[in-house]
Amino acid sequence: MVNERMYGLGAEPSAIRELFAYGMARKAEIGADSVFDFSIGNPSVPAPDAVKQAVLELMEEEPSALHGYSPAAGDPRVRAAVADHIRRRFDVPASPDQVYLTAGAAAGLAISICAVTEPGDEVVVIAPFFPEYQVWIETAGCTRVEVPAHVPDFQLDIDALDAAIGPATAAVIINSPNNPVGAVYTRENLEALAALLARKEAELGRKIYVISDEPYREITYGAEVPYVPCVWPRTIVCYSYSKSFSLPGERIGYIYVSDLMDDAAEVSTAVAGAGRALGFICAPVLFQRVIAACIDEPSDVASYAENRRLLTEGLGALGYEFVEPDGAFYLWVRALEDDAQAFSDRAKAHELLLVPSDSFGVPGWVRVSYCVSRATIERSMPAFKALMEEYRG
Amino acid sequence: MVNERMYGLGAEPSAIRELFAYGMARKAEIGADSVFDFSIGNPSVPAPDAVKQAVLELMEEEPSALHGYSPAAGDPRVRAAVADHIRRRFDVPASPDQVYLTAGAAAGLAISICAVTEPGDEVVVIAPFFPEYQVWIETAGCTRVEVPAHVPDFQLDIDALDAAIGPATAAVIINSPNNPVGAVYTRENLEALAALLARKEAELGRKIYVISDEPYREITYGAEVPYVPCVWPRTIVCYSYSKSFSLPGERIGYIYVSDLMDDAAEVSTAVAGAGRALGFICAPVLFQRVIAACIDEPSDVASYAENRRLLTEGLGALGYEFVEPDGAFYLWVRALEDDAQAFSDRAKAHELLLVPSDSFGVPGWVRVSYCVSRATIERSMPAFKALMEEYRG
Repeated sequence: MVNERMYGLGAEPSAIRELFAYGMARKAEIGADSVFDFSIGNPSVPAPDAVKQAVLELMEEEPSALHGYSPAAGDPRVRAAVADHIRRRFDVPASPDQVYLTAGAAAGLAISICAVTEPGDEVVVIAPFFPEYQVWIETAGCTRVEVPAHVPDFQLDIDALDAAIGPATAAVIINSPNNPVGAVYTRENLEALAALLARKEAELGRKIYVISDEPYREITYGAEVPYVPCVWPRTIVCYSYSKSFSLPGERIGYIYVSDLMDDAAEVSTAVAGAGRALGFICAPVLFQRVIAACIDEPSDVASYAENRRLLTEGLGALGYEFVEPDGAFYLWVRALEDDAQAFSDRAKAHELLLVPSDSFGVPGWVRVSYCVSRATIERSMPAFKALMEEYRG
Repeated sequence: MVNERMYGLGAEPSAIRELFAYGMARKAEIGADSVFDFSIGNPSVPAPDAVKQAVLELMEEEPSALHGYSPAAGDPRVRAAVADHIRRRFDVPASPDQVYLTAGAAAGLAISICAVTEPGDEVVVIAPFFPEYQVWIETAGCTRVEVPAHVPDFQLDIDALDAAIGPATAAVIINSPNNPVGAVYTRENLEALAALLARKEAELGRKIYVISDEPYREITYGAEVPYVPCVWPRTIVCYSYSKSFSLPGERIGYIYVSDLMDDAAEVSTAVAGAGRALGFICAPVLFQRVIAACIDEPSDVASYAENRRLLTEGLGALGYEFVEPDGAFYLWVRALEDDAQAFSDRAKAHELLLVPSDSFGVPGWVRVSYCVSRATIERSMPAFKALMEEYRG
């Protein structure tokens, strides 16, 4: 008698989490150093020292006020700090009213999708895509429309988007720097998207929102990451401090409804309503304040850059094919057989935990998360070599 | 083009939050000491010292592990600590698998309702009721069926429940100690509910869940608060540390799906699925660990008991009619005219912020939150006196 959809979602854990759980058990069995766990995007870089200092300082404040409810959209001081940061950094007129603090990007995405769609609408995603998009699109009563990324550069395929966007399209979710591929959409590519959306809005007589999922914005290796609201005004940015400050478990991020869109206030109101509807009261308040205190703290990407170099050089030398990542901390590697799940299973026998691409909506690849220790990458190379030799026979 | 329901929810803030916001502005205008803000359930008792100590100790741990993702249902150590606490305290066979840590009771309720209902089902609530129940029931696509509490003791009205529970009833939400009335359901009353539900399940051939909303469990003034799963096995407990540890902004609580129900594993699976569907990833991890460290810490209810005494003696002497509260920190006071909103507005002119009962689903009362400073209650008495005199003419 329980809800059928909810039971299904609970019974079918994501491939990523399943592999992660397998890895935990396997490490307990044979030792952590013998398992090469590339399954999950749990940052290996520690949170900045400034986070710890901010927590310790805040804990000296009077507890009732410190730990009390904030308004649903967040502590006004924190919203002001985030808006100020956006203004200074991206030169857009961000007002605190358009900032809604969330329990991470997941909450931001679930809320944003519910806010700008009606049941029956379509939401476009770019394949490969983060698997939970599907769950939140369904929660909103909408249908997912998949548009494959342009191969081999994994930029937005404007022609394919042109074909996919129709009268039922309410929103397009983009994610740059991208999980799982590591692509960063160029300014030119985003401008082509904006031109397409402007034409489609005029043709179809409806608003089309871009929901820009940006947890990896700070994790880049030289590429420019254009601020999407500057290119397409009808953009809702879903930001998270999970990766930039290595705080994924604390659940802190924000929705920024671009002030540049003509219906900004209306969308912000719907965002507040959707937060209520989904059971959110406010983002965790201690970490709201931590974020405000650390807002200009740089992310430490040096370790990820070094991991990326080691992994791409190592796998390249072994003959693996992969997409050179411009951002995030994932390497998208061609499976050595058509069936990515079968390939992932054979990799497991070498203690290599690689996420098969099927759950990201495309066949034939695996995702290698390199937010791991340098030693894990170094020690994994003989296993990658043995796996390659097994296929080459 | 935004979602109509979400826009409506965002545009219509709750009466409580509206009054709270008015109070904030009014205090800035005429001084905090001149406004008697009884609007919101933000605990005035500070969090226990043990919470601060736990935070400081945890912050010495390695940050990546400390702030990293936990499994969706929570850190296994914390789930084990909660289950152990439930076992020791209530003598029920609570297993960690049945504990799902949540971002407070709001998340717990939204998740639980979605987990055990299908769209079109009915969910019974007892009037007066916490207004957000309606929002989460609608999110699940269900209909709210209101059953008035038994007057004058505000216990469950078993005959009225008998009449209200029908073939579409999936769940009954109860809240004891009760917000807004302060009633605590007696064991006898809960046993009568259980007998009714057993009969209804047999007659109707469907399972009927009790969702027990328990943020005020620790805040009582001598009354026994029976553990609902011991009385009705098909109970889902939604607990929060917001009030017991004065941490409402940190968003930490849990769902406990009673091991005593015959479909416990199935319900837990649906709970996990509903958490995913609504955009929750895990409860904030630092405060997960804080809870585990402080789990046997007693709540400080002495201040609330003193406030309750002061307020009931003071209002009683002035001739106000109210329900003697057995728990929580709210006093349910009869408005001095039929229109509770009009009464609340007139109280405002005396700087008294009292929440009209209409938003709790009943006319003619106001809720007075006494989780305030003792001084606020003492200083408010002349205003309550003036208000009474205004009505008596």
